[in-house]
Amino acid sequence: MDKRIKEQLDFLLEIDKEKLITRQTSLSNHGRKENDAEHAWHMAIAAYLLQEYSNEPIDIAKTMIMCLIHDIVEIDAGDTYCYDEEAKKTQSLREEAAKERIYSLLPADQKEKLTALFDEFENWSSPEAKFAHAMDNIQPLILNNSNGGSDWKEHGVTAKQVYVRQSQTKRGSEKLYEVTDEIIQKNVSDGNIPAE
Amino acid sequence: MDKRIKEQLDFLLEIDKEKLITRQTSLSNHGRKENDAEHAWHMAIAAYLLQEYSNEPIDIAKTMIMCLIHDIVEIDAGDTYCYDEEAKKTQSLREEAAKERIYSLLPADQKEKLTALFDEFENWSSPEAKFAHAMDNIQPLILNNSNGGSDWKEHGVTAKQVYVRQSQTKRGSEKLYEVTDEIIQKNVSDGNIPAE
Repeated sequence: MDKRIKEQLDFLLEIDKEKLITRQTSLSNHGRKENDAEHAWHMAIAAYLLQEYSNEPIDIAKTMIMCLIHDIVEIDAGDTYCYDEEAKKTQSLREEAAKERIYSLLPADQKEKLTALFDEFENWSSPEAKFAHAMDNIQPLILNNSNGGSDWKEHGVTAKQVYVRQSQTKRGSEKLYEVTDEIIQKNVSDGNIPAE
Repeated sequence: MDKRIKEQLDFLLEIDKEKLITRQTSLSNHGRKENDAEHAWHMAIAAYLLQEYSNEPIDIAKTMIMCLIHDIVEIDAGDTYCYDEEAKKTQSLREEAAKERIYSLLPADQKEKLTALFDEFENWSSPEAKFAHAMDNIQPLILNNSNGGSDWKEHGVTAKQVYVRQSQTKRGSEKLYEVTDEIIQKNVSDGNIPAE
């Protein structure tokens, strides 16, 4: 087997571990918590189906691969819950080290391409990155809404905290932020989440 | 919320159930069996990274979305193990009914688009479909190879049976079929799988 294909297959085998990284979001019907691979799969399909709502024109292939790979670093760095302020302080350092180790398994040109895509996502530095972040927000919102806000309840999260994160959705899609706001307000009025 | 967005979000919530459809392939490191959503995520990244080996030029966005959605019908139809000849007799009927129910949740234009993509995949009727099938073959092969062929052993599958399926990979990629052949031969010579 030639070196290039071997490196590509070694990388593909390594990222299998992402299926074991558990998130804080429960599946619909009050199911178990989902994992990073499932979340990324769901986000990429959402990006494809909702692309018409992006504020700016996007390259959908680039957006999908960005969604699919954005959590690979968590194989080493673990999942950082978006409302865990302590863990968020070290998140960037942990993820940088993970990025270097894992993407180095790839041939150099593909390492460069995928780490650039990851950095672009992390830095919100393109229309695709902004829309991918909107997907990263709306995907767990749909699940949590379907479960009566159970994930927010479990972690004692307030609507104010949810808005800090979810209001960023408007950077990718004003239209999807309108829907997001509607869903959050419904959960506040249903008593699933306290306002503050 | 307008009707179109509501239909799109309803579909996205429905397909969450794909995360509960278990396949016959074990994760690496002799882990649990994987599910359809994890498999599709892995296939789509493989398509992106291995696209250079496609026999014919492919639209990578189309190939990735095809990989991501190809098993959605299994939410209703269940997973049909590729070496289960009895189950395969009814697979097509079960999947047609599932396709109609699940994709009908979408707005009509997106239902039409996604069912056409699914049909194209099922009929091997484009370069993208052929390459997506190669990914559908090579993804479990990588995992099974990493586990010493444990999935083949569990089901008493022979190399002859494996070749019936895996030899189709050459329709999408002659190069990846060479690698596939090398991996199967290694497993035969290691005693992980009987020749017949």
